[in-house]
Amino acid sequence: LGAVAALVRSVGSADFRLPHTGYSAPAGIPAGAVTAEDAELIAHLAAEGTVRMHLTLTPQKLPDVVSHNVIADLKGSENPEQVVVVSGHLDSWDLGTGAIDDGAGVAVAMEAAEILQKLHLRPKRTLRVIAWMDEETGGSGSQAYTKEHSSEFPHHVAAIESDAGAAHPLGFDIRMSNAAADLIRPVLNVLQSIGANAVENRPYPPGADIATMSENTVPALGILQDGRTYFDYHHSAADTLDKIVPEELRENAAAMAVMGYALASMKNPLPR
Amino acid sequence: LGAVAALVRSVGSADFRLPHTGYSAPAGIPAGAVTAEDAELIAHLAAEGTVRMHLTLTPQKLPDVVSHNVIADLKGSENPEQVVVVSGHLDSWDLGTGAIDDGAGVAVAMEAAEILQKLHLRPKRTLRVIAWMDEETGGSGSQAYTKEHSSEFPHHVAAIESDAGAAHPLGFDIRMSNAAADLIRPVLNVLQSIGANAVENRPYPPGADIATMSENTVPALGILQDGRTYFDYHHSAADTLDKIVPEELRENAAAMAVMGYALASMKNPLPR
Repeated sequence: LGAVAALVRSVGSADFRLPHTGYSAPAGIPAGAVTAEDAELIAHLAAEGTVRMHLTLTPQKLPDVVSHNVIADLKGSENPEQVVVVSGHLDSWDLGTGAIDDGAGVAVAMEAAEILQKLHLRPKRTLRVIAWMDEETGGSGSQAYTKEHSSEFPHHVAAIESDAGAAHPLGFDIRMSNAAADLIRPVLNVLQSIGANAVENRPYPPGADIATMSENTVPALGILQDGRTYFDYHHSAADTLDKIVPEELRENAAAMAVMGYALASMKNPLPR
Repeated sequence: LGAVAALVRSVGSADFRLPHTGYSAPAGIPAGAVTAEDAELIAHLAAEGTVRMHLTLTPQKLPDVVSHNVIADLKGSENPEQVVVVSGHLDSWDLGTGAIDDGAGVAVAMEAAEILQKLHLRPKRTLRVIAWMDEETGGSGSQAYTKEHSSEFPHHVAAIESDAGAAHPLGFDIRMSNAAADLIRPVLNVLQSIGANAVENRPYPPGADIATMSENTVPALGILQDGRTYFDYHHSAADTLDKIVPEELRENAAAMAVMGYALASMKNPLPR
Protein backbone atom coordinates (compact mmCIF):
# COMPACT_ATOMS: atom_id res chain seq x y z
CA LEU A 1 0.00 0.00 0.00
CA GLY A 2 3.03 2.25 -0.15
CA ALA A 3 3.89 2.50 3.53
CA VAL A 4 7.51 3.51 4.05
CA ALA A 5 7.78 2.22 7.61
CA ALA A 6 5.72 0.63 10.35
CA LEU A 7 5.56 1.41 14.06
CA VAL A 8 3.79 -0.73 16.59
CA ARG A 9 2.60 0.28 20.03
CA SER A 10 4.46 -1.86 22.54
CA VAL A 11 2.32 -4.56 24.09
CA GLY A 12 4.32 -4.80 27.31
CA SER A 13 2.14 -4.51 30.40
CA ALA A 14 4.27 -2.15 32.49
CA ASP A 15 4.29 1.64 32.20
CA PHE A 16 7.96 2.46 32.35
CA ARG A 17 8.35 3.77 28.82
CA LEU A 18 10.19 0.66 27.73
CA PRO A 19 9.71 -0.39 24.11
CA HIS A 20 8.58 -4.00 24.07
CA THR A 21 10.17 -5.54 21.03
CA GLY A 22 9.66 -8.73 19.16
CA TYR A 23 10.02 -10.36 15.80
CA SER A 24 8.77 -7.93 13.17
CA ALA A 25 9.35 -7.81 9.43
CA PRO A 26 6.27 -6.41 7.75
CA ALA A 27 6.73 -6.43 4.00
CA GLY A 28 10.40 -5.63 4.15
CA ILE A 29 9.94 -2.04 5.28
CA PRO A 30 11.60 -0.50 8.35
CA ALA A 31 9.71 -1.41 11.50
CA GLY A 32 9.97 -0.42 15.12
CA ALA A 33 8.21 -0.56 18.46
CA VAL A 34 7.36 2.60 20.38
CA THR A 35 6.55 2.71 24.05
CA ALA A 36 2.92 2.84 25.10
CA GLU A 37 3.52 6.35 26.45
CA ASP A 38 4.93 7.59 23.16
CA ALA A 39 2.21 5.80 21.18
CA GLU A 40 -0.38 7.68 23.24
CA LEU A 41 1.40 10.96 22.55
CA ILE A 42 1.54 10.21 18.82
CA ALA A 43 -2.15 9.29 18.80
CA HIS A 44 -2.98 12.51 20.63
CA LEU A 45 -0.98 14.58 18.16
CA ALA A 46 -2.44 12.68 15.18
CA ALA A 47 -5.92 13.58 16.38
CA GLU A 48 -4.90 17.22 16.17
CA GLY A 49 -3.38 17.08 12.70
CA THR A 50 -0.71 15.57 10.51
CA VAL A 51 2.20 14.04 12.38
CA ARG A 52 5.60 13.89 10.73
CA MET A 53 8.17 11.58 12.24
CA HIS A 54 11.86 11.18 11.61
CA LEU A 55 12.90 7.60 12.37
CA THR A 56 16.44 6.65 13.26
CA LEU A 57 16.45 2.87 13.32
CA THR A 58 19.66 0.96 13.79
CA PRO A 59 18.88 -2.71 13.25
CA GLN A 60 21.58 -5.10 12.17
CA LYS A 61 20.96 -8.37 10.40
CA LEU A 62 24.11 -10.36 10.96
CA PRO A 63 25.05 -13.51 9.08
CA ASP A 64 23.83 -16.80 10.52
CA VAL A 65 26.33 -18.67 12.66
CA VAL A 66 26.48 -22.28 13.74
CA SER A 67 24.99 -22.84 17.16
CA HIS A 68 23.59 -25.85 18.98
CA ASN A 69 20.78 -27.31 20.98
CA VAL A 70 22.13 -28.70 24.24
CA ILE A 71 20.78 -32.17 24.98
CA ALA A 72 21.30 -34.54 27.90
CA ASP A 73 19.69 -37.92 28.42
CA LEU A 74 18.88 -39.59 31.70
CA LYS A 75 18.73 -43.05 30.13
CA GLY A 76 15.66 -45.14 30.77
CA SER A 77 16.18 -48.38 32.66
CA GLU A 78 13.80 -50.51 30.59
CA ASN A 79 12.84 -48.63 27.43
CA PRO A 80 15.65 -46.20 26.74
CA GLU A 81 14.43 -45.73 23.17
CA GLN A 82 11.23 -44.18 24.51
CA VAL A 83 11.80 -40.51 25.23
CA VAL A 84 10.15 -37.87 27.39
CA VAL A 85 11.45 -34.41 26.53
CA VAL A 86 11.73 -31.77 29.28
CA SER A 87 12.86 -28.45 27.86
CA GLY A 88 13.26 -24.69 27.75
CA HIS A 89 15.08 -22.49 25.29
CA LEU A 90 18.65 -21.31 25.56
CA ASP A 91 18.58 -18.14 23.49
CA SER A 92 16.98 -14.91 24.63
CA TRP A 93 15.93 -11.57 23.24
CA ASP A 94 18.73 -9.06 23.01
CA LEU A 95 17.92 -6.40 25.59
CA GLY A 96 17.97 -8.15 28.95
CA THR A 97 19.77 -11.26 30.06
CA GLY A 98 16.80 -13.53 29.42
CA ALA A 99 16.20 -14.73 32.94
CA ILE A 100 12.45 -15.24 32.65
CA ASP A 101 12.57 -15.82 28.86
CA ASP A 102 13.82 -18.40 29.02
CA GLY A 103 16.74 -19.05 31.34
CA ALA A 104 14.11 -20.15 33.84
CA GLY A 105 12.80 -22.81 31.44
CA VAL A 106 16.26 -24.26 30.92
CA ALA A 107 16.93 -24.24 34.66
CA VAL A 108 13.62 -25.97 35.35
CA ALA A 109 14.25 -28.69 32.76
CA MET A 110 17.76 -29.32 34.09
CA GLU A 111 16.50 -29.33 37.65
CA ALA A 112 13.82 -31.90 36.79
CA ALA A 113 16.54 -34.39 35.86
CA GLU A 114 18.63 -33.32 38.84
CA ILE A 115 15.75 -33.99 41.23
CA LEU A 116 15.30 -37.53 39.90
CA GLN A 117 19.03 -38.13 40.31
CA LYS A 118 19.02 -36.80 43.87
CA LEU A 119 16.06 -38.95 44.78
CA HIS A 120 17.66 -41.99 43.10
CA LEU A 121 14.62 -42.36 40.88
CA ARG A 122 15.42 -44.09 37.61
CA PRO A 123 12.45 -43.97 35.23
CA LYS A 124 12.08 -46.78 32.77
CA ARG A 125 11.98 -44.41 29.80
CA THR A 126 14.61 -41.83 28.89
CA LEU A 127 14.20 -38.33 30.27
CA ARG A 128 15.73 -36.02 27.69
CA VAL A 129 16.67 -32.51 28.80
CA ILE A 130 16.77 -30.12 25.86
CA ALA A 131 17.91 -26.52 25.94
CA TRP A 132 16.64 -25.36 22.57
CA MET A 133 18.62 -22.90 20.49
CA ASP A 134 16.97 -20.09 18.54
CA GLU A 135 13.41 -20.01 19.76
CA GLU A 136 13.31 -16.26 19.32
CA THR A 137 14.08 -15.71 15.67
CA GLY A 138 12.58 -18.66 13.86
CA GLY A 139 13.01 -21.92 15.68
CA SER A 140 15.94 -23.30 13.73
CA GLY A 141 17.01 -25.38 16.75
CA SER A 142 13.64 -27.06 16.88
CA GLN A 143 13.74 -27.57 13.10
CA ALA A 144 17.19 -29.15 13.29
CA TYR A 145 16.01 -31.54 16.01
CA THR A 146 13.01 -32.50 13.91
CA LYS A 147 15.20 -33.08 10.87
CA GLU A 148 17.48 -35.38 12.83
CA HIS A 149 14.97 -37.15 15.06
CA SER A 150 11.57 -37.17 13.35
CA SER A 151 11.87 -40.86 12.61
CA GLU A 152 11.99 -41.40 16.38
CA PHE A 153 8.91 -39.26 17.11
CA PRO A 154 6.67 -42.35 17.34
CA HIS A 155 8.74 -43.25 20.42
CA HIS A 156 8.74 -39.74 21.82
CA VAL A 157 6.19 -40.39 24.54
CA ALA A 158 5.70 -36.71 25.36
CA ALA A 159 7.41 -33.33 25.17
CA ILE A 160 7.23 -30.68 27.90
CA GLU A 161 8.42 -27.09 27.60
CA SER A 162 8.57 -24.24 30.08
CA ASP A 163 8.59 -20.91 28.25
CA ALA A 164 6.32 -18.54 30.13
CA GLY A 165 8.55 -17.38 32.94
CA ALA A 166 9.41 -18.50 36.42
CA ALA A 167 6.35 -17.42 38.34
CA HIS A 168 4.17 -19.77 40.35
CA PRO A 169 3.02 -22.74 38.23
CA LEU A 170 -0.73 -23.22 37.99
CA GLY A 171 -0.64 -26.49 36.07
CA PHE A 172 -0.21 -27.44 32.44
CA ASP A 173 -1.52 -26.48 29.05
CA ILE A 174 -1.58 -29.70 27.07
CA ARG A 175 -2.30 -30.84 23.55
CA MET A 176 -3.01 -34.54 23.19
CA SER A 177 -5.81 -37.06 22.69
CA ASN A 178 -8.59 -37.09 25.26
CA ALA A 179 -7.51 -40.58 26.25
CA ALA A 180 -4.04 -39.27 27.01
CA ALA A 181 -5.40 -36.26 28.86
CA ASP A 182 -7.40 -38.61 31.10
CA LEU A 183 -4.10 -40.20 32.15
CA ILE A 184 -2.52 -36.81 32.87
CA ARG A 185 -5.16 -35.68 35.35
CA PRO A 186 -4.35 -38.15 38.15
CA VAL A 187 -0.70 -37.14 37.93
CA LEU A 188 -1.70 -33.58 38.65
CA ASN A 189 -3.15 -34.61 41.99
CA VAL A 190 0.45 -34.89 43.16
CA LEU A 191 0.86 -31.18 42.42
CA GLN A 192 -2.34 -30.09 44.11
CA SER A 193 -0.53 -29.18 47.32
CA ILE A 194 1.40 -26.44 45.50
CA GLY A 195 -1.62 -25.37 43.46
CA ALA A 196 -0.16 -26.58 40.18
CA ASN A 197 -2.88 -29.00 39.19
CA ALA A 198 -4.84 -27.09 36.54
CA VAL A 199 -4.94 -28.67 33.09
CA GLU A 200 -6.35 -27.45 29.80
CA ASN A 201 -6.34 -29.54 26.64
CA ARG A 202 -5.99 -27.03 23.83
CA PRO A 203 -6.08 -27.14 20.03
CA TYR A 204 -2.66 -25.53 19.61
CA PRO A 205 0.86 -26.47 20.69
CA PRO A 206 1.72 -25.40 24.24
CA GLY A 207 5.29 -24.34 23.38
CA ALA A 208 7.09 -22.98 20.33
CA ASP A 209 9.96 -25.46 20.40
CA ILE A 210 7.72 -28.50 20.81
CA ALA A 211 5.23 -27.34 18.18
CA THR A 212 6.63 -29.53 15.42
CA MET A 213 6.54 -32.59 17.64
CA SER A 214 3.00 -31.67 18.60
CA GLU A 215 2.04 -31.37 14.92
CA ASN A 216 3.47 -34.88 14.55
CA THR A 217 1.08 -36.20 17.24
CA VAL A 218 3.62 -36.27 20.06
CA PRO A 219 1.67 -35.45 23.24
CA ALA A 220 2.80 -31.97 24.26
CA LEU A 221 2.70 -30.11 27.58
CA GLY A 222 3.64 -26.60 28.64
CA ILE A 223 3.88 -25.41 32.21
CA LEU A 224 1.21 -22.79 32.77
CA GLN A 225 2.79 -20.08 34.93
CA ASP A 226 1.05 -17.21 36.66
CA GLY A 227 1.53 -14.69 33.89
CA ARG A 228 0.44 -11.52 35.59
CA THR A 229 3.87 -9.89 35.55
CA TYR A 230 5.46 -11.79 32.63
CA PHE A 231 4.87 -9.13 29.99
CA ASP A 232 6.00 -6.41 32.37
CA TYR A 233 9.55 -7.64 31.78
CA HIS A 234 9.43 -9.90 28.70
CA HIS A 235 11.77 -8.85 25.87
CA SER A 236 12.89 -5.79 27.79
CA ALA A 237 16.16 -4.79 29.42
CA ALA A 238 14.52 -5.60 32.75
CA ASP A 239 14.39 -9.38 32.12
CA THR A 240 17.10 -10.10 34.67
CA LEU A 241 17.68 -12.71 37.37
CA ASP A 242 16.34 -10.59 40.21
CA LYS A 243 12.85 -10.98 38.72
CA ILE A 244 12.85 -14.66 39.62
CA VAL A 245 11.54 -15.73 43.01
CA PRO A 246 13.58 -18.80 44.01
CA GLU A 247 10.65 -20.52 45.71
CA GLU A 248 8.52 -20.14 42.57
CA LEU A 249 11.36 -21.46 40.40
CA ARG A 250 11.52 -24.49 42.67
CA GLU A 251 7.77 -25.01 42.30
CA ASN A 252 8.23 -25.07 38.53
CA ALA A 253 11.05 -27.58 38.82
CA ALA A 254 8.81 -29.72 41.02
CA ALA A 255 6.01 -29.59 38.44
CA MET A 256 8.37 -30.50 35.59
CA ALA A 257 9.97 -33.31 37.64
CA VAL A 258 6.65 -34.83 38.71
CA MET A 259 5.21 -34.72 35.21
CA GLY A 260 8.42 -35.89 33.54
CA TYR A 261 8.85 -38.77 35.98
CA ALA A 262 5.23 -39.87 35.62
CA LEU A 263 5.36 -39.85 31.83
CA ALA A 264 8.66 -41.72 31.84
CA SER A 265 7.45 -44.26 34.39
CA MET A 266 3.77 -44.98 33.68
CA LYS A 267 2.95 -48.49 32.52
CA ASN A 268 2.26 -47.67 28.88
CA PRO A 269 3.18 -44.68 26.73
CA LEU A 270 0.44 -42.08 26.42
CA PRO A 271 -2.02 -43.05 23.68
CA ARG A 272 -1.88 -40.86 20.58
CA LEU B 1 41.09 9.32 48.51
CA GLY B 2 42.15 8.76 44.93
CA ALA B 3 38.90 7.48 43.46
CA VAL B 4 38.79 7.96 39.71
CA ALA B 5 34.99 7.74 39.41
CA ALA B 6 31.88 7.11 41.48
CA LEU B 7 28.85 4.96 40.75
CA VAL B 8 25.70 5.00 42.79
CA ARG B 9 23.03 2.34 42.94
CA SER B 10 19.81 3.88 41.69
CA VAL B 11 17.32 4.60 44.43
CA GLY B 12 14.24 4.37 42.21
CA SER B 13 11.62 2.03 43.62
CA ALA B 14 10.64 0.18 40.43
CA ASP B 15 12.50 -2.81 39.00
CA PHE B 16 12.63 -2.01 35.31
CA ARG B 17 16.38 -1.54 35.01
CA LEU B 18 16.03 2.21 34.71
CA PRO B 19 18.88 4.27 36.09
CA HIS B 20 17.42 6.76 38.55
CA THR B 21 19.50 9.88 38.16
CA GLY B 22 19.86 13.02 40.16
CA TYR B 23 22.23 15.82 41.00
CA SER B 24 25.66 14.31 41.60
CA ALA B 25 29.06 15.93 41.64
CA PRO B 26 31.26 14.14 44.13
CA ALA B 27 34.65 15.80 44.30
CA GLY B 28 34.76 16.61 40.62
CA ILE B 29 35.29 13.03 39.49
CA PRO B 30 33.10 11.29 36.90
CA ALA B 31 29.90 10.02 38.47
CA GLY B 32 27.01 7.91 37.27
CA ALA B 33 23.97 5.97 38.41
CA VAL B 34 23.58 2.28 37.66
CA THR B 35 20.31 0.43 37.78
CA ALA B 36 19.49 -1.61 40.86
CA GLU B 37 19.73 -4.76 38.73
CA ASP B 38 23.21 -3.91 37.50
CA ALA B 39 24.30 -2.82 40.96
CA GLU B 40 23.29 -6.23 42.26
CA LEU B 41 25.23 -7.90 39.48
CA ILE B 42 28.31 -5.79 40.22
CA ALA B 43 28.02 -6.57 43.95
CA HIS B 44 27.72 -10.27 43.14
CA LEU B 45 30.79 -10.17 40.91
CA ALA B 46 32.73 -8.06 43.43
CA ALA B 47 32.10 -10.72 46.05
CA GLU B 48 33.79 -13.22 43.74
CA GLY B 49 36.85 -11.12 42.97
CA THR B 50 38.14 -7.92 41.45
CA VAL B 51 35.73 -6.17 39.13
CA ARG B 52 37.09 -3.99 36.35
CA MET B 53 34.68 -1.59 34.68
CA HIS B 54 34.98 0.52 31.60
CA LEU B 55 32.80 3.61 31.94
CA THR B 56 31.51 5.51 28.95
CA LEU B 57 29.87 8.60 30.42
CA THR B 58 28.56 11.33 28.16
CA PRO B 59 27.51 14.22 30.38
CA GLN B 60 27.43 17.74 29.01
CA LYS B 61 27.69 20.85 31.12
CA LEU B 62 26.28 23.57 28.95
CA PRO B 63 26.64 27.27 29.63
CA ASP B 64 24.00 28.91 31.79
CA VAL B 65 21.22 30.66 29.90
CA VAL B 66 18.73 33.27 31.02
CA SER B 67 15.43 31.79 32.09
CA HIS B 68 12.56 32.97 34.23
CA ASN B 69 10.24 32.22 37.06
CA VAL B 70 6.65 32.66 35.88
CA ILE B 71 4.57 34.67 38.34
CA ALA B 72 0.93 35.71 38.33
CA ASP B 73 -0.91 37.62 41.03
CA LEU B 74 -4.57 37.38 41.91
CA LYS B 75 -4.58 40.76 43.63
CA GLY B 76 -5.95 40.94 47.14
CA SER B 77 -9.00 43.13 47.65
CA GLU B 78 -7.95 44.68 50.97
CA ASN B 79 -4.29 43.92 51.57
CA PRO B 80 -2.72 43.39 48.18
CA GLU B 81 0.75 43.86 49.68
CA GLN B 82 0.24 40.73 51.76
CA VAL B 83 1.09 37.68 49.69
CA VAL B 84 0.27 33.97 49.83
CA VAL B 85 2.46 32.00 47.43
CA VAL B 86 1.07 28.90 45.72
CA SER B 87 3.70 27.16 43.63
CA GLY B 88 5.35 24.29 41.80
CA HIS B 89 8.47 24.19 39.67
CA LEU B 90 8.62 24.63 35.93
CA ASP B 91 11.83 22.80 35.09
CA SER B 92 12.15 19.03 35.09
CA TRP B 93 14.83 16.39 34.96
CA ASP B 94 16.03 15.60 31.47
CA LEU B 95 14.81 12.08 30.77
CA GLY B 96 11.02 12.22 30.89
CA THR B 97 8.69 15.11 30.31
CA GLY B 98 8.40 15.96 33.99
CA ALA B 99 4.69 15.33 34.45
CA ILE B 100 4.85 14.30 38.10
CA ASP B 101 8.05 16.30 38.80
CA ASP B 102 6.81 18.89 38.64
CA GLY B 103 4.33 19.75 35.89
CA ALA B 104 1.68 18.58 38.31
CA GLY B 105 2.77 21.13 40.91
CA VAL B 106 2.58 23.98 38.41
CA ALA B 107 -0.84 22.82 37.23
CA VAL B 108 -2.10 22.56 40.81
CA ALA B 109 -0.88 26.07 41.69
CA MET B 110 -2.44 27.54 38.54
CA GLU B 111 -5.66 25.66 39.15
CA ALA B 112 -5.87 26.97 42.72
CA ALA B 113 -6.13 30.52 41.35
CA GLU B 114 -8.46 29.37 38.59
CA ILE B 115 -10.81 27.77 41.11
CA LEU B 116 -11.08 31.02 43.08
CA GLN B 117 -11.81 32.92 39.86
CA LYS B 118 -14.47 30.44 38.80
CA LEU B 119 -16.14 30.62 42.21
CA HIS B 120 -15.90 34.45 42.20
CA LEU B 121 -13.96 34.33 45.46
CA ARG B 122 -11.74 37.34 45.90
CA PRO B 123 -9.44 36.92 48.92
CA LYS B 124 -8.36 40.05 50.73
CA ARG B 125 -4.68 39.18 50.36
CA THR B 126 -2.85 38.53 47.10
CA LEU B 127 -2.64 34.93 45.90
CA ARG B 128 0.63 34.68 43.99
CA VAL B 129 1.06 31.75 41.61
CA ILE B 130 4.73 30.97 41.03
CA ALA B 131 6.13 28.45 38.58
CA TRP B 132 9.71 28.26 39.81
CA MET B 133 12.56 27.88 37.38
CA ASP B 134 15.55 25.64 38.09
CA GLU B 135 14.55 23.63 41.07
CA GLU B 136 16.50 20.66 39.78
CA THR B 137 20.04 21.95 39.44
CA GLY B 138 20.50 24.43 42.22
CA GLY B 139 17.47 26.58 42.83
CA SER B 140 18.60 29.72 41.00
CA GLY B 141 14.96 30.70 40.38
CA SER B 142 14.22 30.60 44.08
CA GLN B 143 17.44 32.51 44.76
CA ALA B 144 16.52 35.20 42.23
CA TYR B 145 13.09 35.61 43.81
CA THR B 146 14.68 35.95 47.23
CA LYS B 147 17.14 38.53 45.94
CA GLU B 148 14.36 40.62 44.46
CA HIS B 149 11.66 40.18 47.09
CA SER B 150 13.27 39.41 50.44
CA SER B 151 12.42 42.87 51.74
CA GLU B 152 8.76 41.89 51.24
CA PHE B 153 9.07 38.57 53.07
CA PRO B 154 7.64 40.09 56.29
CA HIS B 155 4.44 40.51 54.27
CA HIS B 156 4.59 37.06 52.69
CA VAL B 157 1.91 35.49 54.83
CA ALA B 158 2.70 31.94 53.71
CA ALA B 159 4.25 29.95 50.87
CA ILE B 160 2.87 26.64 49.59
CA GLU B 161 4.60 24.30 47.17
CA SER B 162 3.53 21.06 45.53
CA ASP B 163 6.58 19.05 44.50
CA ALA B 164 5.92 15.43 45.35
CA GLY B 165 3.79 14.31 42.44
CA ALA B 166 0.13 14.26 41.56
CA ALA B 167 -1.10 11.34 43.61
CA HIS B 168 -3.86 11.58 46.19
CA PRO B 169 -3.12 14.36 48.73
CA LEU B 170 -3.01 13.27 52.34
CA GLY B 171 -2.62 16.73 53.83
CA PHE B 172 0.26 19.13 54.38
CA ASP B 173 3.76 19.10 55.73
CA ILE B 174 4.23 22.49 57.33
CA ARG B 175 6.98 24.48 58.98
CA MET B 176 5.79 27.34 61.12
CA SER B 177 5.26 28.44 64.73
CA ASN B 178 2.99 26.31 66.86
CA ALA B 179 0.59 29.26 67.09
CA ALA B 180 0.37 29.34 63.30
CA ALA B 181 -0.05 25.57 63.07
CA ASP B 182 -3.00 25.83 65.46
CA LEU B 183 -4.69 28.10 62.93
CA ILE B 184 -3.99 25.69 60.06
CA ARG B 185 -5.71 22.70 61.65
CA PRO B 186 -9.29 23.99 61.44
CA VAL B 187 -8.75 24.75 57.75
CA LEU B 188 -7.91 21.13 57.17
CA ASN B 189 -11.35 20.09 58.38
CA VAL B 190 -12.60 21.37 55.02
CA LEU B 191 -10.40 18.78 53.32
CA GLN B 192 -11.42 15.90 55.55
CA SER B 193 -14.01 14.65 53.05
CA ILE B 194 -11.24 13.92 50.51
CA GLY B 195 -8.88 12.57 53.15
CA ALA B 196 -6.41 15.43 52.82
CA ASN B 197 -6.47 16.68 56.39
CA ALA B 198 -3.23 15.31 57.82
CA VAL B 199 -0.74 17.89 59.05
CA GLU B 200 2.78 17.57 60.38
CA ASN B 201 4.80 20.51 61.66
CA ARG B 202 8.38 19.69 60.80
CA PRO B 203 11.80 21.19 61.53
CA TYR B 204 12.76 21.46 57.86
CA PRO B 205 11.31 23.30 54.84
CA PRO B 206 8.50 21.41 53.09
CA GLY B 207 9.66 22.35 49.59
CA ALA B 208 12.95 23.19 47.91
CA ASP B 209 11.78 26.39 46.25
CA ILE B 210 10.21 27.79 49.39
CA ALA B 211 13.14 26.81 51.61
CA THR B 212 14.70 30.26 51.62
CA MET B 213 11.40 31.87 52.54
CA SER B 214 11.00 29.27 55.26
CA GLU B 215 14.48 30.04 56.58
CA ASN B 216 13.34 33.68 56.69
CA THR B 217 10.41 32.72 58.97
CA VAL B 218 7.74 32.78 56.25
CA PRO B 219 5.24 30.04 57.21
CA ALA B 220 5.75 27.26 54.68
CA LEU B 221 3.50 24.41 53.54
CA GLY B 222 3.98 21.50 51.16
CA ILE B 223 1.22 19.25 49.91
CA LEU B 224 1.86 15.75 51.22
CA GLN B 225 0.98 13.36 48.40
CA ASP B 226 0.65 9.59 48.58
CA GLY B 227 4.22 8.80 47.60
CA ARG B 228 4.00 5.06 47.09
CA THR B 229 4.65 5.19 43.35
CA TYR B 230 6.46 8.53 43.10
CA PHE B 231 9.98 7.13 43.01
CA ASP B 232 8.94 4.44 40.54
CA TYR B 233 8.87 7.16 37.90
CA HIS B 234 10.73 10.16 39.36
CA HIS B 235 13.69 11.39 37.27
CA SER B 236 13.19 8.59 34.76
CA ALA B 237 12.03 8.52 31.16
CA ALA B 238 8.71 7.21 32.44
CA ASP B 239 7.73 10.50 34.14
CA THR B 240 5.03 11.24 31.56
CA LEU B 241 1.49 12.59 31.65
CA ASP B 242 -0.20 9.17 31.59
CA LYS B 243 1.09 8.60 35.14
CA ILE B 244 -1.25 11.29 36.43
CA VAL B 245 -4.75 10.32 37.52
CA PRO B 246 -6.99 13.31 36.70
CA GLU B 247 -9.17 12.84 39.78
CA GLU B 248 -6.12 12.84 42.04
CA LEU B 249 -4.75 15.95 40.33
CA ARG B 250 -8.09 17.65 41.00
CA GLU B 251 -7.87 16.64 44.66
CA ASN B 252 -4.48 18.34 44.86
CA ALA B 253 -5.86 21.48 43.24
CA ALA B 254 -8.69 21.45 45.76
CA ALA B 255 -6.23 21.15 48.64
CA MET B 256 -4.08 24.00 47.30
CA ALA B 257 -7.13 26.18 46.63
CA VAL B 258 -8.67 25.64 50.07
CA MET B 259 -5.41 26.31 51.87
CA GLY B 260 -4.46 29.25 49.67
CA TYR B 261 -7.88 30.85 50.03
CA ALA B 262 -7.92 30.38 53.79
CA LEU B 263 -4.47 31.90 54.26
CA ALA B 264 -5.35 34.81 52.01
CA SER B 265 -8.69 35.42 53.70
CA MET B 266 -8.24 34.73 57.41
CA LYS B 267 -8.62 37.70 59.71
CA ASN B 268 -4.97 38.18 60.60
CA PRO B 269 -1.80 36.93 58.92
CA LEU B 270 -0.37 33.75 60.41
CA PRO B 271 1.78 34.57 63.46
CA ARG B 272 5.51 34.05 62.95
